[in-house]
Amino acid sequence: MNKQDNMENMIFSGCDTVELAKKYGTPLYVVSEDIIRERCMKIKDVFLNKYPNTMAAYASKAFLTMAMCKIIENEGLNLDVVSGGELYTAIKAGFPMGRIIFHGNNKSWDELLLAVEHNVGRIIVDNLYELEMLEEITSRQNKDINILFRVAPGIGGNTHDYISTGQKDSKFGIPLDPSVIKDIVNRTINSNNIRLLGFHFHLGSQLFENQIYVNAIEIITKLMNYLKEELDFKTLELNVGGGFGIGYTDKDTPKPIEYFTDIIMETVKLQCDKYKMPIPTIIIEPGRWIIAEAGITLYTIGVIKEIPGIRTYASIDGGLPDNPRPALYQAEYDAVVANKINQKADKVVTIAGKCCETGDILIWDLKTPDLEPGDILAVLNTGAYNFSMASNYNRLPRPAVVLVSNGSSEIIVERQTYDDLLRGEKIPSYLRG
Amino acid sequence: MNKQDNMENMIFSGCDTVELAKKYGTPLYVVSEDIIRERCMKIKDVFLNKYPNTMAAYASKAFLTMAMCKIIENEGLNLDVVSGGELYTAIKAGFPMGRIIFHGNNKSWDELLLAVEHNVGRIIVDNLYELEMLEEITSRQNKDINILFRVAPGIGGNTHDYISTGQKDSKFGIPLDPSVIKDIVNRTINSNNIRLLGFHFHLGSQLFENQIYVNAIEIITKLMNYLKEELDFKTLELNVGGGFGIGYTDKDTPKPIEYFTDIIMETVKLQCDKYKMPIPTIIIEPGRWIIAEAGITLYTIGVIKEIPGIRTYASIDGGLPDNPRPALYQAEYDAVVANKINQKADKVVTIAGKCCETGDILIWDLKTPDLEPGDILAVLNTGAYNFSMASNYNRLPRPAVVLVSNGSSEIIVERQTYDDLLRGEKIPSYLRG
Repeated sequence: MNKQDNMENMIFSGCDTVELAKKYGTPLYVVSEDIIRERCMKIKDVFLNKYPNTMAAYASKAFLTMAMCKIIENEGLNLDVVSGGELYTAIKAGFPMGRIIFHGNNKSWDELLLAVEHNVGRIIVDNLYELEMLEEITSRQNKDINILFRVAPGIGGNTHDYISTGQKDSKFGIPLDPSVIKDIVNRTINSNNIRLLGFHFHLGSQLFENQIYVNAIEIITKLMNYLKEELDFKTLELNVGGGFGIGYTDKDTPKPIEYFTDIIMETVKLQCDKYKMPIPTIIIEPGRWIIAEAGITLYTIGVIKEIPGIRTYASIDGGLPDNPRPALYQAEYDAVVANKINQKADKVVTIAGKCCETGDILIWDLKTPDLEPGDILAVLNTGAYNFSMASNYNRLPRPAVVLVSNGSSEIIVERQTYDDLLRGEKIPSYLRG
Repeated sequence: MNKQDNMENMIFSGCDTVELAKKYGTPLYVVSEDIIRERCMKIKDVFLNKYPNTMAAYASKAFLTMAMCKIIENEGLNLDVVSGGELYTAIKAGFPMGRIIFHGNNKSWDELLLAVEHNVGRIIVDNLYELEMLEEITSRQNKDINILFRVAPGIGGNTHDYISTGQKDSKFGIPLDPSVIKDIVNRTINSNNIRLLGFHFHLGSQLFENQIYVNAIEIITKLMNYLKEELDFKTLELNVGGGFGIGYTDKDTPKPIEYFTDIIMETVKLQCDKYKMPIPTIIIEPGRWIIAEAGITLYTIGVIKEIPGIRTYASIDGGLPDNPRPALYQAEYDAVVANKINQKADKVVTIAGKCCETGDILIWDLKTPDLEPGDILAVLNTGAYNFSMASNYNRLPRPAVVLVSNGSSEIIVERQTYDDLLRGEKIPSYLRG
């Protein structure tokens, strides 16, 4: 890595991004270990070290590789997984299983078995059907497991419909009906192998206001009090999920994480005092908040097409398969021309993906300097839900992931080859020849 | 395969789908070779054999595997590819390279080189930048290549914005400006290695009306006449693309393919007579029309959650990662309960995917019989843009693909394993231990 800064090139975690593009090719996911660790440190400063009995879990669905598991392990955070595949990644990375929190609205028998066999720390049980499976698995395996129930508090966040998850009409969790919840809690009290620690809710994603957390905590603590009075059940843990918004473009107005965590802790204390309950351990689960701004994607500009009086399209060598969020959520991204970082951005171009699909537009109306084929475009804040949602649409191989830290870089996921795309394919013998 | 029909089970290409689910597991993509061949036969009957000088190419971005290449080869159709990865698949399947048509708005040098080296039949050149690269590659390689220019005729189909591709404000093709097109055509007339056969346009996807083809052909034949008069250029081929709509649910009103092809041929003849031009070879490129209805996806029902007065959710063991179209395009699908095919569908449920994502809803308000966990759901018409757009979001392994034909079944793509998900991953040494 050429560490001599080129004044015209974008530097990311001490690395010249244009050199990264040359060395590893494009499209390229670049993930900054420095930024991930800064984010984890921030969580420790303003939450874990500030308040007793708190925990934080990284919501790995945003971005997960074995190397990421190692960083999270090293930072002392827990890991939230939502499938057997995510759990398996953590197992293979040697992540401490006691620090796993296993989510999901429709966990399979095999996934629950894998979790029980590996003694994961907590399973967030979504529904009665899952509880019944878990009772049978733990009984057969003669294992004990800690669980929390996911509750749908009946309120939704002010965000894209697709990523709002707390409302009552939701596939997630047990709808908030105290008598229903009382029955299911009572069932665990009498369980041999299952220990109910408490409750989890998740309100949505990309939230910018904290009032919804206050509302949800008021609802949940009321439920906790009801269960205390009805069943003498003591809630030991309350997992309030994540959803803390980040800034993708300057249209977003993200708040510091303490804007959320302080009011969460304050509300929990107020409510518990009111109900004369001890304060449970509070768990937060940031995913996007830790990883989104730690990632950029480097592309090479190809054809630049000016349609007079209408629009200029600049096409890149990736797009929808490596970043489906603009097509899925109308998500907006910002970008810079990595090899012209100090040039005035006085042109307006639309960044088109490479897919044979009109919807494959990554950024509408981006301000850039004069563009030429071969320029390197750095799309910002792509750390979350890009690699993890990547497809091979149009049979485009998935880009490599490079971890950068303090001027050094290392591949953590290799670029797929064309042969990788054919892996597992078979031609029936009667179709050959 | 148990071929004895169970009256309660859905039969697909002679195979009991419930037995397929048992044998191969779920989620499972099932693709009917019989239906693919029926569709190809229909194209021969009403188009290729009815009209002289016609060709049809299967638009492989809808669904491509090596086995699919073999079927298309065997049926005598051409193959439309849009990337190096799709071309590589065809190469590895031994598909005749002369029958390849290579599309794409931003082909890379390496992709064009791969195409030239393998003597593909036609490259659809999207823009001048691509033409310049191709001139250099063919000159260096001392190879000749046939091309068509993609033209944006300036009209769009009445369909989802994302899949409407013919309008002037498009990343695809050369905008219809006769003097610009005259210059680029003239350039090829003087080229040593490049032979311009004609023009291509593509109007959109899931089109249900044929008038737009009439309009586009009127525009393009006028251009052809202009080029004849100005440059004495004779258009040998006109590729009118695909976009022929299929019926996903009973809300769609698909037309038989001859509804499109007859008027296409009639309009071309009328226009060519008017301009006193010979009729060029006409090429159509159906993708979805051939494969969509040839595919179903089998899922196992897991948790069923009734939210009183609101909605009943039934969760499946797949979802957004194997079928992103509902989230991407608000696409609607129909489905049946494969093991209760003759039971009255008098309940209404919402089919929720397994992803930790509120937007992972496959079907809203599906009519079903009484559902139980373990039931097999067959989602219909998933042959196109499901396997080809699949991701590993939430680290869910991609389902297997089974080819069924006349009561027999064979795996053509193996189910991914958890280890497949970790392929290419590395943990930097300083993060280990």
